Amino acid sequence: MATAHNISAIEAAMGELHDFLGDRVSAGEAVREQHSHGESTHPPGMPDLVCFPATTEEVSRIALVSARHGLPIVPFGAGTSLEGHVHALRGGISIDMSRMNRILRVSIDDMDATVEAGVSRKQLQQALDNTGLTFFIDPGADATLGGMAATRASGTTAVRYGTMRENVLGLTVVLADGRIIHTGTRARKSSAGYDLTRLFVGSEGTLGIITEVTLRLHAQPEAVTAAICAFETIEGAVKTVIEAIQLGVAVARIEFMDEHQVDAVNRYSHLDMLLKPTLLFEFHGVSQASVEEAAQMAEQLASEHGSLGFQWQTTLADRERLWKARHDVYYATRALRPGSDLLTTDVCVPISRLAECIVATRADLDSVSFPAVMVGHVGDGNFHVQCLLGPDQIEEANQFAQRLVERAQAMGGTCTGEHGVGSGKKKYLYAEHGEGLEVMRAIKRTLDPDNRMNPGKVLDVD
Amino acid sequence: MATAHNISAIEAAMGELHDFLGDRVSAGEAVREQHSHGESTHPPGMPDLVCFPATTEEVSRIALVSARHGLPIVPFGAGTSLEGHVHALRGGISIDMSRMNRILRVSIDDMDATVEAGVSRKQLQQALDNTGLTFFIDPGADATLGGMAATRASGTTAVRYGTMRENVLGLTVVLADGRIIHTGTRARKSSAGYDLTRLFVGSEGTLGIITEVTLRLHAQPEAVTAAICAFETIEGAVKTVIEAIQLGVAVARIEFMDEHQVDAVNRYSHLDMLLKPTLLFEFHGVSQASVEEAAQMAEQLASEHGSLGFQWQTTLADRERLWKARHDVYYATRALRPGSDLLTTDVCVPISRLAECIVATRADLDSVSFPAVMVGHVGDGNFHVQCLLGPDQIEEANQFAQRLVERAQAMGGTCTGEHGVGSGKKKYLYAEHGEGLEVMRAIKRTLDPDNRMNPGKVLDVD
Repeated sequence: MATAHNISAIEAAMGELHDFLGDRVSAGEAVREQHSHGESTHPPGMPDLVCFPATTEEVSRIALVSARHGLPIVPFGAGTSLEGHVHALRGGISIDMSRMNRILRVSIDDMDATVEAGVSRKQLQQALDNTGLTFFIDPGADATLGGMAATRASGTTAVRYGTMRENVLGLTVVLADGRIIHTGTRARKSSAGYDLTRLFVGSEGTLGIITEVTLRLHAQPEAVTAAICAFETIEGAVKTVIEAIQLGVAVARIEFMDEHQVDAVNRYSHLDMLLKPTLLFEFHGVSQASVEEAAQMAEQLASEHGSLGFQWQTTLADRERLWKARHDVYYATRALRPGSDLLTTDVCVPISRLAECIVATRADLDSVSFPAVMVGHVGDGNFHVQCLLGPDQIEEANQFAQRLVERAQAMGGTCTGEHGVGSGKKKYLYAEHGEGLEVMRAIKRTLDPDNRMNPGKVLDVD
Repeated sequence: MATAHNISAIEAAMGELHDFLGDRVSAGEAVREQHSHGESTHPPGMPDLVCFPATTEEVSRIALVSARHGLPIVPFGAGTSLEGHVHALRGGISIDMSRMNRILRVSIDDMDATVEAGVSRKQLQQALDNTGLTFFIDPGADATLGGMAATRASGTTAVRYGTMRENVLGLTVVLADGRIIHTGTRARKSSAGYDLTRLFVGSEGTLGIITEVTLRLHAQPEAVTAAICAFETIEGAVKTVIEAIQLGVAVARIEFMDEHQVDAVNRYSHLDMLLKPTLLFEFHGVSQASVEEAAQMAEQLASEHGSLGFQWQTTLADRERLWKARHDVYYATRALRPGSDLLTTDVCVPISRLAECIVATRADLDSVSFPAVMVGHVGDGNFHVQCLLGPDQIEEANQFAQRLVERAQAMGGTCTGEHGVGSGKKKYLYAEHGEGLEVMRAIKRTLDPDNRMNPGKVLDVD
């Protein structure tokens, strides 16, 4: 696949990279193809070279090679991106972080850990076994923590434990010119200068390459209970969520599925949930008594808003089956129409507008030619429409997605709650940020004047 | 008081400001003196002019006047800053935000509010009466919410509810060239581009002037209980805190006082606490049963670590007396040595190092000539030493403060947990951020190329 770069620049870079990476740099077709895409319908982009650094210093040296030869650099984590973040749209060097997978430090007293960017979420959770601590942010996919930080990811537990924004305490970052900086301290809070940690969280590799992440951990809850609850109406489900949060009920997860999603999950995971708008609840607490109290409050609120009965999931096996089913929605949805492409939207709106947004979106879906299901992190106002597409339906789905984003933005919401911008959502940012987008561009130009850091993502500067 | 600016520039600016502000711009000596300082021992700085804008648009026009005449602009909230943030060190225009004190919007369903930057914390709390919601961040002083956002303030409840970093959802900001931007959306989370909200939170007026703040609110807890608990040792107190947090006990406040602080508070607030290292606890929950369960868990942990008994504060009157006493520590401390100057430090360390840091600091205090007390937000690892100084002791106290900061930074901590950098702590930032400080400077130069935005604060760029 041809790229815009001079063959001699690529060959020179290859030589220099080989000097310190040895066989951990490759120009092979198969490895380049593997690093040309994440999981989405966005067009792939082949890198010219793929590197597998093992240390921050090696990443810094790669940045210097990139600078010398004017080649873009594109960080690559687990490749689970849904918005084209890892596609090397202008060729250059893909930096595969999989060799940087060491857990550097866990502090039980401070409830934090420092990991290399290539450590996956599940790997960290395993390392925390028997510590009494856990890392709760869970985007579904077994993404890397560097990738999750770079996209400001979240997932089912954000309603209680926050997103990567709240749970990254500090970062090691390699800048475009090879400088290495450490953001944040190990103190829980600080007012010492600009918040560089939060600037790099969500910057999707366009300002620097995250090589280490210091994460906040949480206490493993002493007691957990869960429940499934179907509702007559979407409004009833959303009102229940709003009131539960207003009362301070200790919900750790509140997930919404529309009846089409319930149907897909029932088929795939062999469950028999009612084909109605449904909430999945999980409650965390310090004792069985406290979680039961919370759950009973939620049950009471649900019954006031037209619930069709709380189905308690009290055993660990029940709960694991429930959340496995929730996490498998992607596969459950795919199984509705095998071989189809999947387009997943990601709007997030103020929760006061959520029911209205979901209802209007379902009405919109009545007019399209493809099947679609809805699932959401309803406590945050974030929901996904998964569109199952035949080869001729991608453009129609993109138009639907645009209408949905415009609807959400008109309600004070955002085009992306947790998936990021990548190349797919750049066109929506001006409507959301206005003149603020120029401030973002100014920062990008300052930190990456040659536009070598994951170019073509988040915002256009040239 | 002489400033560096050309008299004719000041006169021309005065004329232009008068055109749209009328008598809401002043060059009077008294009003300039009043705007020359916050609450600290840092040298004051007189502005040349003081403006009282009523709208974001007026702030934008002031920025344009500042640009035309090369005059600095320094935002001024309630003047409660402890690090010289509001001192007009290079003269110019002080922008007093007190006329921008409207609460623009409260959404009960979304649990958020938008306020003008001059709204004070207590004013917001009053506006939330009878909504079931509250705003918990409480730095003690009745600061403005714009000032609290600008310094990334926190206070006694950060252990449960976070700091301004977590509780600001969006901002309206006037940039150096008068442009007005709106950061964030009303969605609870977003992955749509760089986190400009968090960039301006904590930037202390050096990147732009915050004119509106959208805040996250919290449910007013259904049940609250509190307790006072003295310990034989500081280590015992800190271990209790660590274990309570590890267990997920729902503490909303955990405040530490050393025996000298307890003595001052006893005298000032007519209490009779034991003269020992002491923790003040507050527990929030959805029911009396849940807070009592949490409190009993904490009591049990405390007894395992050498507590001298939990003194329950179950009535509202008891609790109000307790927290009023806690909030009055500043005055209680002053009353120990009337007429003295007060220097307040603000380090924050990983909680695993907190007991060691406090003990070493108390040993250091044995060698100084002034009296000092310690109080802290121990759940965050943040503590303050209040030094009571005669006229000849300020330099000695500054040297003590420097040793304390170096000790905290060596433990992985920060020079300021919540008070900010201002002019007082700039010298500590390189040790904390290294090359990251250059990134901050680059951002500052990009957004404020003439260095007119609160110059001389946070970092030096010239």
